[in-house]
Amino acid sequence: MISTEALAPERIVRLEEDAVVILDQRRLPDDEVELRLQTVEQAAEAIRTLAVRGAPAIGITAAYAYARAARQGEDLDAAYATLVAARPTAVNLRWALDAVRLEPSAERAQRLHAEEVDRCHRMAEHGAGLLAPRSRPLTHCNAGALATGGYGTALGVIRAAWKRGFVESVWVGETRPLLQGARLTAWELEQLGIAHAVIADSAAASLMARGEVDCVLVGADRIAANGDTANKIGTYALAVLARHHSIPLYVVAPTSTVDRETPTGAGIPLEQRDGAEVTARFSARNPAFDITPAELVTAIVTEEGVHASPYERSLPR
Amino acid sequence: MISTEALAPERIVRLEEDAVVILDQRRLPDDEVELRLQTVEQAAEAIRTLAVRGAPAIGITAAYAYARAARQGEDLDAAYATLVAARPTAVNLRWALDAVRLEPSAERAQRLHAEEVDRCHRMAEHGAGLLAPRSRPLTHCNAGALATGGYGTALGVIRAAWKRGFVESVWVGETRPLLQGARLTAWELEQLGIAHAVIADSAAASLMARGEVDCVLVGADRIAANGDTANKIGTYALAVLARHHSIPLYVVAPTSTVDRETPTGAGIPLEQRDGAEVTARFSARNPAFDITPAELVTAIVTEEGVHASPYERSLPR
Repeated sequence: MISTEALAPERIVRLEEDAVVILDQRRLPDDEVELRLQTVEQAAEAIRTLAVRGAPAIGITAAYAYARAARQGEDLDAAYATLVAARPTAVNLRWALDAVRLEPSAERAQRLHAEEVDRCHRMAEHGAGLLAPRSRPLTHCNAGALATGGYGTALGVIRAAWKRGFVESVWVGETRPLLQGARLTAWELEQLGIAHAVIADSAAASLMARGEVDCVLVGADRIAANGDTANKIGTYALAVLARHHSIPLYVVAPTSTVDRETPTGAGIPLEQRDGAEVTARFSARNPAFDITPAELVTAIVTEEGVHASPYERSLPR
Repeated sequence: MISTEALAPERIVRLEEDAVVILDQRRLPDDEVELRLQTVEQAAEAIRTLAVRGAPAIGITAAYAYARAARQGEDLDAAYATLVAARPTAVNLRWALDAVRLEPSAERAQRLHAEEVDRCHRMAEHGAGLLAPRSRPLTHCNAGALATGGYGTALGVIRAAWKRGFVESVWVGETRPLLQGARLTAWELEQLGIAHAVIADSAAASLMARGEVDCVLVGADRIAANGDTANKIGTYALAVLARHHSIPLYVVAPTSTVDRETPTGAGIPLEQRDGAEVTARFSARNPAFDITPAELVTAIVTEEGVHASPYERSLPR
C-alpha cells in the first residue's frame, strides 16, 4: 500500500506567511511534529541541529528562510551569511541561497523546491534502470523524501525500481551515531510499503560476502569535479567493501550537489560534530562525513542521466 | 594511574560456596552490579543474555557452573548439555566444559581460570612487540579483562604496549548493536588510564584513509584450522578496510579458541541474535558474528607466540 501523504513535499518543508514550517526530523519516527521557523536564526539553528537535514532539503529550507526575510524587509546580507554558515559540507546550501539572492521572492524559493523534487523524479527514472530484477540494494543514511524535500535521491531510485517490481528488499544501514537510516529511511520505507531490514552498519560487509547485497545506493552532500563524493560518515567504508566484493556503488544526487569549483575531495570541508553524539560518557571523535574517491564510484546518477568515469568530463555542467 | 582493582579476575567471575558470581556486563559502565548464579540454568541464561560475554570468559563461567553442580551432586550430563548450548559460536565453551568434565572439581575450574589469565599475559608479551612506538591501534568489541576473566587478549596486548610507552592512543569502535566497545572497552581503558577515543564503527575507514590507524587488534570467538576467524560482527569489515589501506590486522586469542576440528570458517556456526537489539520498532537483521578469512589476517597471536600464514602449520597444536 503506497501512502505518500506523509512524505509529500509540503509536509517536509513549506513557506507560510510568517514562517518556514518543517517536519522535525529529530523527533521521527516516534513523533511527527512540525517546527515553525520564524527567524533566520531559528532556520539556521534547525539546520545546525539536524531538525532538517539532507543536502537538498537544507538548501530548500535556507531558500525559504531567505525569502521570508526578504518579505519582512530584513537585512539580507546578514541572512545570507547566517544561513550559508549553518553547515559546511553540503554545497546545496550556498547554491540555493545564491539562487534566491538573485530573485528574492517566495515564488522563486517555491520554484526551487519544485525543481529539486522534479530532479528527484528524473534521477529515479535514470537510476531505476541500473537495478536488475529481484535486487537487494543497500542504502546508507537517509537519501529519501525527508532529505530532499520530496521523493528522494538514492531512495527515489529504489522507489522507482520497486514500482517496476525490480526490488526484492532493501538493506538499511542504521547509520550511527544519529541513526538516520534506522529512524528516517526505515520510516519512509514503511510508509511506502517497501520491504526492508535495518542492519548495524558493521554488518554490511558480511552480507556482501554472502552474496546478499546486489548494489549500494547513496546520496551525496557534495560531489567534487572529479567525482570524489562527500557523504555521511560510513559511505567510504561501504565503497571499499563494495569494491572488494565486486558490487557496484552508485551515488545519486541532483546537479545542485555537484561542485565544479572544487577539483577533488581534498577541497571539501568535512564537518566534525560533537563527540557527545557518539557517547555522552567517554571521549569520542565524531566525523560527520567522509570522502569516497571517484575511483570507487561505479556511476553517478543526476537528473541529467547516469554518468561514468572520467567524471570531469561526464558530470553535467 | 593504573588501578586494576576493578578489573581483577575474581571481580569478573568467581566461584563461591553456592554460586558463581559475575559482574553483570549488561549494566556496565553505569552500574557495577554482581549477579549470583545459583543454578545451571541461571548460568546458561547469564551467558545467553550477555551478562557475561567474551569467548574465554563464558568458558570460565561455564566451568565454574559445572563445578558448582558437581559439588551439589546435580545431574552433570544435563548440566553439560545446558551450558554447552548457551551460545553456539565460541569454541571455548565446549573446551572449558570438556576440561572440567574430566576432573569435576572447584579446584580444576579455578585452575582453568588462572591458566586462561596466564595465557592472556603471555599473549600480551608476544603481541606488544608488534606495535611500533607512538602506535594508534584500533580495537573492536571488548577483548579485555571482562571478556577473558582477567587482563584481556587484544586489549591485553594494548595494555602491555602502553606500559612500554608504545601506544599514543587507542581507537575504540563502539560496536553496535550492543556497544561493547563504547560501554566495556572504554570503561576498561578509563580504569587503566590509557588514552582513547570512541568512534562510530563506520568511521574507522576514513581514519584509516587519513593515516590515523596503525594497526587493528581484535579478539576471536573461534579460529578455524586454516586461520579463518569468527569474531564480533564488524571484524570482517575492519579486515577488508585494513587490507585496502595496507594496515596490519592481528587476531589475539588463547589456544583454547583455536578449533582444529573445524577446517575453515565455513564450518563455524554463526549466531543470529534478536533483531530487536538493532531496533525495537522496525524489522531488522542482527548477525552477531562474522568470519574474517585467514587471507586478511596479518598474524594470529596466541600464548605460544605470533603465528603467520599458512596457519594450518603455524597454529599451535
